[in-house]
Amino acid sequence: MTAQATTPAHPLLDAHAPVLDEIRSALATRSWYSRYPESPSPRVYGEDAAAVGLAAYEAHLGRPYAALADQPTDGTFVGSEVSPYGPTLGVSYPALDLDAGLAAARGALRAWRDAGPQVRAAVCVEIVDAVGRRSFELANAVMHTSGQPFVMSFQAGGPHALDRALEAIAAGLVEQERVPASVVWEKPARDQPLRMRKDYRIVPRGVGLVIGCNTFPTWNAYPGLFASLVTGNAVVVKPHPRAVLPLAITVEAARQVLADAGFDRALVQLAAESDGQGLARTLAQRDEVAIIDYTGGPSFGEWLEREGATRGALVYTEKAGLNSVVVDSTDDLRGTLGNLAFSLALYSGQMCTAPQNLYVPQSGVQTDEGHLSFDEFGDRLAEAVTRLTADPGKAVELLGATVNDQVRANADALARVAAQADGRVVLESRRVVHPAYAEAVVRAPGLVAVDVSREDAYTRECFGPVGFLIRTTSTQQSLERLAGTVREHGGMTASVYSTSDEVLGAAREAAADAGVALSENLTGQVFVNQTAAFSDYHGTGANPAANAAYTDAAFVASRFRVITSRRHV
Amino acid sequence: MTAQATTPAHPLLDAHAPVLDEIRSALATRSWYSRYPESPSPRVYGEDAAAVGLAAYEAHLGRPYAALADQPTDGTFVGSEVSPYGPTLGVSYPALDLDAGLAAARGALRAWRDAGPQVRAAVCVEIVDAVGRRSFELANAVMHTSGQPFVMSFQAGGPHALDRALEAIAAGLVEQERVPASVVWEKPARDQPLRMRKDYRIVPRGVGLVIGCNTFPTWNAYPGLFASLVTGNAVVVKPHPRAVLPLAITVEAARQVLADAGFDRALVQLAAESDGQGLARTLAQRDEVAIIDYTGGPSFGEWLEREGATRGALVYTEKAGLNSVVVDSTDDLRGTLGNLAFSLALYSGQMCTAPQNLYVPQSGVQTDEGHLSFDEFGDRLAEAVTRLTADPGKAVELLGATVNDQVRANADALARVAAQADGRVVLESRRVVHPAYAEAVVRAPGLVAVDVSREDAYTRECFGPVGFLIRTTSTQQSLERLAGTVREHGGMTASVYSTSDEVLGAAREAAADAGVALSENLTGQVFVNQTAAFSDYHGTGANPAANAAYTDAAFVASRFRVITSRRHV
Repeated sequence: MTAQATTPAHPLLDAHAPVLDEIRSALATRSWYSRYPESPSPRVYGEDAAAVGLAAYEAHLGRPYAALADQPTDGTFVGSEVSPYGPTLGVSYPALDLDAGLAAARGALRAWRDAGPQVRAAVCVEIVDAVGRRSFELANAVMHTSGQPFVMSFQAGGPHALDRALEAIAAGLVEQERVPASVVWEKPARDQPLRMRKDYRIVPRGVGLVIGCNTFPTWNAYPGLFASLVTGNAVVVKPHPRAVLPLAITVEAARQVLADAGFDRALVQLAAESDGQGLARTLAQRDEVAIIDYTGGPSFGEWLEREGATRGALVYTEKAGLNSVVVDSTDDLRGTLGNLAFSLALYSGQMCTAPQNLYVPQSGVQTDEGHLSFDEFGDRLAEAVTRLTADPGKAVELLGATVNDQVRANADALARVAAQADGRVVLESRRVVHPAYAEAVVRAPGLVAVDVSREDAYTRECFGPVGFLIRTTSTQQSLERLAGTVREHGGMTASVYSTSDEVLGAAREAAADAGVALSENLTGQVFVNQTAAFSDYHGTGANPAANAAYTDAAFVASRFRVITSRRHV
Repeated sequence: MTAQATTPAHPLLDAHAPVLDEIRSALATRSWYSRYPESPSPRVYGEDAAAVGLAAYEAHLGRPYAALADQPTDGTFVGSEVSPYGPTLGVSYPALDLDAGLAAARGALRAWRDAGPQVRAAVCVEIVDAVGRRSFELANAVMHTSGQPFVMSFQAGGPHALDRALEAIAAGLVEQERVPASVVWEKPARDQPLRMRKDYRIVPRGVGLVIGCNTFPTWNAYPGLFASLVTGNAVVVKPHPRAVLPLAITVEAARQVLADAGFDRALVQLAAESDGQGLARTLAQRDEVAIIDYTGGPSFGEWLEREGATRGALVYTEKAGLNSVVVDSTDDLRGTLGNLAFSLALYSGQMCTAPQNLYVPQSGVQTDEGHLSFDEFGDRLAEAVTRLTADPGKAVELLGATVNDQVRANADALARVAAQADGRVVLESRRVVHPAYAEAVVRAPGLVAVDVSREDAYTRECFGPVGFLIRTTSTQQSLERLAGTVREHGGMTASVYSTSDEVLGAAREAAADAGVALSENLTGQVFVNQTAAFSDYHGTGANPAANAAYTDAAFVASRFRVITSRRHV
């Protein structure tokens, strides 16, 4: 008895209907889907794409970001970005007038609500495409705010972030489409059945606030941004003060698409700030803000969760955790060491998904190259890291630059940490001189071996190029520690290396108990740090590291509400 | 590339697979679905069903509830139920030992998790059926704890509550089924594609706490109870101290079904308390409690929301609001007055969905019986109420008994409220003597007319048999006040009477803006107070009256998490 109400028409819906079908299907089957090639190769993107993108990036430097001058502003400018590679960006952004900006956002809601889920999804895809055309510009902006190496900046900052955006659009779209627009309801009765028409209308929560982070300014912001947008909300994007430019570019593109599509630009606004202004706190306390998406440190994340509950705002947080690896045995030692070394080295461990705690039994590790003792395994891993990062020119394309003083302090503290915990520095975190950026502080991963009893050393997140080799009494204890520490302190990733089905089964149980995703025996070109949109959930929401996952139904279902009107027919 | 993993088998899944299909389909199409006849007629349920149910109820009175003696208990008994109709129930319940009970609940989780969504749903249906077989016993228990009239106790306490249970089961089931159990993921690569098997495992949050209310002990508890159960959680049911018996019967039935099905009874436990013990607060602060479902007053509800956020627990609340009616015009005055009078009278306005604020323009109401002034409309409504409740014997079957002193105080305060707000008592809240229960305090609805400017009178929930006739300057103002008061103070229901398409359209806009469901021109046997499972959402989550709705995706999607394990194939 479902009577499908007419879907509002829009040229972008005609244009993007096939994409919407593709992403609906990819989400349902959790299959591989990517809209943009991940390789920044000239063969893929064209010979001049890189140069044009670089020029577009450089055109931003040292001047006001004029393309956002149409936002409500108090007339002042903010901005204090300095590249982790050295250069000061010198971009200044018009400060958002919060009263006027939030009023404008609320004022834009009604037409956006009435556009309906499909038109909103099509407009969101168009925004994604508009950003996608600027992937090289974005890559430079991400590189010089996060300190990521260039290729990673391109991939994670552009195509992979846009895949996550599309995933959020798909998840939000299908969740809304599960509610029929209109039905005739019929209840049997003695004489005539009771018949009522019931119209179900999707309404937004209000204004979403997206609080960006320094290390993945776009990748971690897009899921919340697009999940809120597609479900009918307006969004204010509050970037990390040291990583504004990538989101300024994003917001500029979004506003242009919205205007071209006949909607109010105020649906997406940038609230930039200089270092230390505390704008996230101010915005989170505004009544207009109904949804908050946050990536960052745990203490502010927990404050946001409480503040949101006090005001009835939804809060999605990704905070921090202890990413863990259990090494039991392997039939591919070379692949194991190479994969682990890469995971540790990639962006100097400054990924929220990078492994930190590697549990190895005191009895050592059985491998295809024979038995390795605990210390031998550590030394072999150290060698693999050293080999991978030996050539400075190649190393910096993997390591990137350290993003802040805390990371550098963590890298410098290995000897102290080892001494305090009666451990051993297996590998110092080596300084690498960047051939092009002398001021960049580049660090290769270091390793400290400690006993499992020294929880003081390894049960805090030590963000950056630091890994702990934790000596356990057995693989069983390794798995117990993985589950216990993740349950208590959180974890974004876990992995296991074992040739034993029994151990792998136990690892799956431990991961399920701990509420963390598990990668098994990664020895090739898939790394525990990396998750694929539409297929791998990023985070689970089941442990303290994050209260949400990119992108499950829980991440989108509460961002809208359904209002029924019913009448007899 | 979806590889469906084998669904765990269970005899109950074979038995209930057809029901699961029916409820999946009813939810998707939002069509009428009911598993149990709503009429307590002997022709439907059999000649002796009522007597057997009454005897079963009476067998509980004046003694310990022995069937729950197998719960972990500290050996003490609690219970202080007194029927709003007069009699003391005298049932005592073994107090739950919280440490042991919560440990038992957690201990029961793993096998329940591993049973999978379909088996859990089938077991939940079996619980629903087990409770359904006790509908007459339950009806008496609901009647003598809530004060509802018998037929309503039967319908809302039994079949309708069970329909809401089935709806929650369906919503939780399909939300879990949207995640494939296992897929092979294939990413194109230069040579061989990357192929990985990814298993997705549904895991629960932990222990759910359901905090019941006095007026609808089962109807408001079942959605949370079954939504948590079907998604793999254990549940501790904490009934209102004055409405324990209906949930004790429910928990007893659930535990028996669980045990018979091979699961741990500790998946459902009763935490009864005597009046004033504050057990809800104690339980809400327990680390084991990961989900809280609450129906009750706003201040404790808001405390729960904050407490939940502090601990990372999900909190679903239904609190209070200003249910509003806009009267503009009608072509069926008799139907309008009859419907409104019934809505006001049903259970003496002690439904969270009962209308309180009736906005009528000062210019009066155009009807099929001619034009009525504001005062004339009020008087005609008062007459309709008086006529409906004139015969005490029939009236008590509609009004039931008042549930507590606050309701009685509200009913007694009409003259004072009217005087303070320069209003007029249009109809006193009449005392009705119950022919069978002399001690019952039965009240017919009263009506107070006030000017729209006297917000002091009508912008607080006045729970019970009290309606405000609010004189507005126009229907436009009526709609603005509806939207404004619901946005600020919340509202569970709204309705409008108008012959004008323009007004109805404006009312739909107002309802969408306010975030409240709208009923239009109800003049027959559907009442604004009543919502149908699978079709009408109860609450919206879009205004302060409730942060959740029975049952949308948002009500179920966060109750479970998905844990991936992936490996190369």
